[in-house]
Amino acid sequence: MEKIGEDALVVFSGGQDSTTCLFWALARFRKVMAVTFDYGQRHKAEIDCARRIAADLGVEHQVLDMALLNQLAPNSLTRMDIPVDEAIPDGKSTPNSYVEGRNMLFLTFAAIVAKTHGIRHIVTGVCETDFSGYPDCRDVFVKSLNVTLNLAMDYQFVLHTPLMWLDKAQTWGLADSLGRLDYVRRRTLTCYNGIPGDGCGHCPACTLRRQGLNNYLASRKSC
Amino acid sequence: MEKIGEDALVVFSGGQDSTTCLFWALARFRKVMAVTFDYGQRHKAEIDCARRIAADLGVEHQVLDMALLNQLAPNSLTRMDIPVDEAIPDGKSTPNSYVEGRNMLFLTFAAIVAKTHGIRHIVTGVCETDFSGYPDCRDVFVKSLNVTLNLAMDYQFVLHTPLMWLDKAQTWGLADSLGRLDYVRRRTLTCYNGIPGDGCGHCPACTLRRQGLNNYLASRKSC
Repeated sequence: MEKIGEDALVVFSGGQDSTTCLFWALARFRKVMAVTFDYGQRHKAEIDCARRIAADLGVEHQVLDMALLNQLAPNSLTRMDIPVDEAIPDGKSTPNSYVEGRNMLFLTFAAIVAKTHGIRHIVTGVCETDFSGYPDCRDVFVKSLNVTLNLAMDYQFVLHTPLMWLDKAQTWGLADSLGRLDYVRRRTLTCYNGIPGDGCGHCPACTLRRQGLNNYLASRKSC
Repeated sequence: MEKIGEDALVVFSGGQDSTTCLFWALARFRKVMAVTFDYGQRHKAEIDCARRIAADLGVEHQVLDMALLNQLAPNSLTRMDIPVDEAIPDGKSTPNSYVEGRNMLFLTFAAIVAKTHGIRHIVTGVCETDFSGYPDCRDVFVKSLNVTLNLAMDYQFVLHTPLMWLDKAQTWGLADSLGRLDYVRRRTLTCYNGIPGDGCGHCPACTLRRQGLNNYLASRKSC
C-alpha cells in the first residue's frame, strides 16, 4: 500500500471494524493516533478493549467523555433499563440502539481533536453495506460532512472510509490482507454481552461477525 | 411578519443577539422553544439570564451541559486562569476565546433536540457582519451544515439566521421593529463581566453593544 507522508486520526471503538481501520491507517500513514468516545456504553469492557489495543500497538489514544449524549436520546446502548433490540437490523427501520446524529457528533469531535494535533486525515469505519439503517453512516453524508467540517474550521480535512463498500466478509479479508486477521479475531470486541474475540456467540453482533468470518474463510479456501 | 404554522427551536444564550432572535421567532412561528449550552462559561450569570428570559416569555427552555468542550480546547471562555483577550476582534485573527468548531457542535446538538421535539426550524443568531472571525459563523458554513444535518438525520431542517447580514445597530433596529428594544436593552446580558443590561461599560462586548445602540438611536432620530 502506498504510504502517505502525513498523520491520521482513527475513530476507534476497539471493535472489529475500527481495529481493521486502525491497521489500514498504520499501513498507510506516517503516524496514527486514535480517539474513542465513551458515552456510557452498556459495556465499559469496550473502552478497556480499545485502550488495550492502542497500548499494544503503541498508538497515542484519547478517550473523550461523551456522557452528555444521555441528555439527548436515552436508548438501549446508554441506559441499562432498556433492553437491547435482539433483532438483526433489516436495513429498513433503525434499530433501537440508535442515538440520532451520533456519528455526526463523533466525527465532528474527532475533527476538532485532529486539528488540535495538526492532523487532517480522519479514518472512520462507517459502512453502507451492512444494513445498519443509520443515515449518518452513508457515503453521501460523509462527503457532505467533509465539506461542512472544512468550512467550519477553515481546514482541509480528508475523511477516509475504507470499509464503506465492504461487507463483513470483505472486512475480514481486508484485515487478512494487512496480515492482521488473527489479531482482529482474538483481540477485538463486538459482542453485545462484552465478551472479546468470538464473543458470546448468540447475540446479533456475534451472529453477524461469525457469518462474515465464515463466509470469508470459505471464500479464501475456495480460491 | 408572515406567521409560519410550524414550531421553531432557538439557540439561545440570553444575550442581545439570541434574545432578538427569540422575539423574531415568537413573531413568526406557531410555538417556540429555546436551547442553551452550558459549557462552563466564565459567568454562570449568562445561564441564569437565559433562564429568566425564557421563563418570563413562557418559552420552553432546555439547558444542555456541554462541559465536555473543556476536554478539547481550553481557552479563556472556559478556564478562569486564562485572561479574556481585551482587544476588540479585528476580523483577521480569531480571538482567543475561540473553541474550534464550537458553533457547529452547538447547531448539531440543537438539531438533535429539535428533531426529538418534531421541530424542523432552527433559529440562530450567527452573523458575518461583526468581524468575529469565526469560520463557523459564515453563511456558507451554515448552508453546508443545513445539508449535512438533513443527510445525517434524514430530516428537512431549515436553519434560519435572521442576523446574518445585520450590524449591531441594525440588530437593535430589528428588536425595535419587533417592539422589544427596551426589553432587549434591559434584560439581556452581553457584558464579559457578567452585568446585565448596559453592563460594565468598558469591556469589548459592552463597547460594541453601546456603539451599536448609539448608532441605531442616532439613525432613528434622524429619520
